[in-house]
Amino acid sequence: MPQNYKLTIAYDGSAYHGWQIQPHGPTIQGAIEKALESIVPQKCRLTASGRTDAGVHALGQVAHVVADTRLSAARLLQAVNSLLPSDIAIIDCETVSAEFHARFSAHKKRYRYRVLNQPYPNPIGRQYVWQIFQPLDFEAMRAATEYFVGEHDFKTFESSGSPRSHTIRQVFTANWDQPRKKHLVFEIEANGFLKQMVRNIVGTVVDVGKGRFQPETIPHMLAAKDRTAAGPTAPATGLFLVAVTY
Amino acid sequence: MPQNYKLTIAYDGSAYHGWQIQPHGPTIQGAIEKALESIVPQKCRLTASGRTDAGVHALGQVAHVVADTRLSAARLLQAVNSLLPSDIAIIDCETVSAEFHARFSAHKKRYRYRVLNQPYPNPIGRQYVWQIFQPLDFEAMRAATEYFVGEHDFKTFESSGSPRSHTIRQVFTANWDQPRKKHLVFEIEANGFLKQMVRNIVGTVVDVGKGRFQPETIPHMLAAKDRTAAGPTAPATGLFLVAVTY
Repeated sequence: MPQNYKLTIAYDGSAYHGWQIQPHGPTIQGAIEKALESIVPQKCRLTASGRTDAGVHALGQVAHVVADTRLSAARLLQAVNSLLPSDIAIIDCETVSAEFHARFSAHKKRYRYRVLNQPYPNPIGRQYVWQIFQPLDFEAMRAATEYFVGEHDFKTFESSGSPRSHTIRQVFTANWDQPRKKHLVFEIEANGFLKQMVRNIVGTVVDVGKGRFQPETIPHMLAAKDRTAAGPTAPATGLFLVAVTY
Repeated sequence: MPQNYKLTIAYDGSAYHGWQIQPHGPTIQGAIEKALESIVPQKCRLTASGRTDAGVHALGQVAHVVADTRLSAARLLQAVNSLLPSDIAIIDCETVSAEFHARFSAHKKRYRYRVLNQPYPNPIGRQYVWQIFQPLDFEAMRAATEYFVGEHDFKTFESSGSPRSHTIRQVFTANWDQPRKKHLVFEIEANGFLKQMVRNIVGTVVDVGKGRFQPETIPHMLAAKDRTAAGPTAPATGLFLVAVTY
C-alpha cells in the first residue's frame, strides 16, 4: 500500500534554478526525485510547501511524496541522502497520514534574510548573504519593519507571475537582529508569502537603511497596492526558508 | 620609483588549486597577479607569507608585491578588487619599506579549523567545515591539544614535499572552542607551520575524539618523528589562514 512520506530538506540553492522542475537547468525537486526514483523504482512526484526561487536556500523546506514501498522513514532518509549531491540533504523523514499535504496543510512559514554590512567584500560565505558596502541606519530599518506585522494586503510587495486567490497575508513576527556588528539578520513568520515577498520587503527596508525612504513611508506603500511604490527586490543569495509549521 | 605594497587578502579556496601558481588549474596567486598586471602594466610577482593548499581558505593571508607605479595603496586596493572574482578580496593594502618581505618578516601565523559535528549533513556552509557525523569526545580532544603547545619537533605532523631547514616549531596557543553545540572551532598560533601541519594535528585530535587514541599518546607521537605514528590529514575545507603577524 502506498505510503505518504514527509521530508524536511536543507539545501544550498546556489547551483540550482530554484525548487521547481523546469526544462532548462538543474532544480532541487529534480535532484531529489531522481534520487528517490532510483530507490523506489517508480515515478515519484514531490510536492513542496511552496517553490523557492533560483539561488534561494532552505534550512527546513518540507515536501511530501507518495510512494509504494515498505521502506521505513529512517531507511528512506539514509538511502536518499547517500544519492544526493552535497548541496542537498534530507534532514528528517516521517510517514504521515494520506491527508497530509505539504502545501495545503501548512499553517505558517518562517524565512530568514542575511545582510553583511561592511565597506569591503568578504569572499567567505558570500553565497549566503547580501553584501552591502555603504553604512545602513539599523534603527530606521527596525522601525520600518514594524509596519509589516499584522494582516495586510501585500500586493505592493508581490512580484508578478504566480497564481493566488488574494494578496492578504498575516505576518506574525518580523524583526532584525544584529548577532555581530556587521551581520544583520531579518526573520519573518507569516501564514503565507506572495512571490518574492520577503526579498521585496528586505529590498525596501534596506532602502530605508540607506536613507532613501523614511520608515513612515511603509504604510503608504502598503496602501498603494502597487509594486512600483516600494523598493527593489533583494538578491536571492541572502534568503533562507527556515521552517514550515503544520 | 618602485613601491613595495603589502596586501592582506581573504579568499574562498574552494575553486582553486591552492595559492601558488602552477601549470594546471586556477590559483589565488595567478588570479591576483592577473588583476594587478592589468592595472600596473608590467609583470607583477606576488610573494605570500606562505602557500595554502588546494581548497584552503584565508581571512588574512599577506603578500607583498613590488610595482613601479604611483598609485596610492587605497586606489590600488580598489582597482584590484574591481577586477577580482567574488571569491577573492584584498581587504587591506599599504605601502611598506623595501625591506618588508611577506614570508621572511613574518613573526607568527594563526590558523583556524572548523568542524561541524552532527549526525546528518548540512549543505549550508559545507565548503567551510569538516562534517563529522559520529559523536566526538570534546574533552579528550581538548586534553590532546594541550600537548602541542610549546617548542616541539613537529616532524610527525609534517606531510612530505616542502623544503625546510628543520622541523622545530614553537606553538604559542592551541585550543578548541565550542561556540554552538555542533560547532567545534580549533585555533592555533605558531612562529611557523610545516606542510599540512594544522590538518595533520586536527586529523589526529579528531581521532582522539573518536576514541582511536588516548590524549596521552600525543607526546609519544611527537617523539616518534614519523608521520605514520599520527592520525590522518583533515580535509582542506575546514581550514582558514586567519592572520599573519609582523
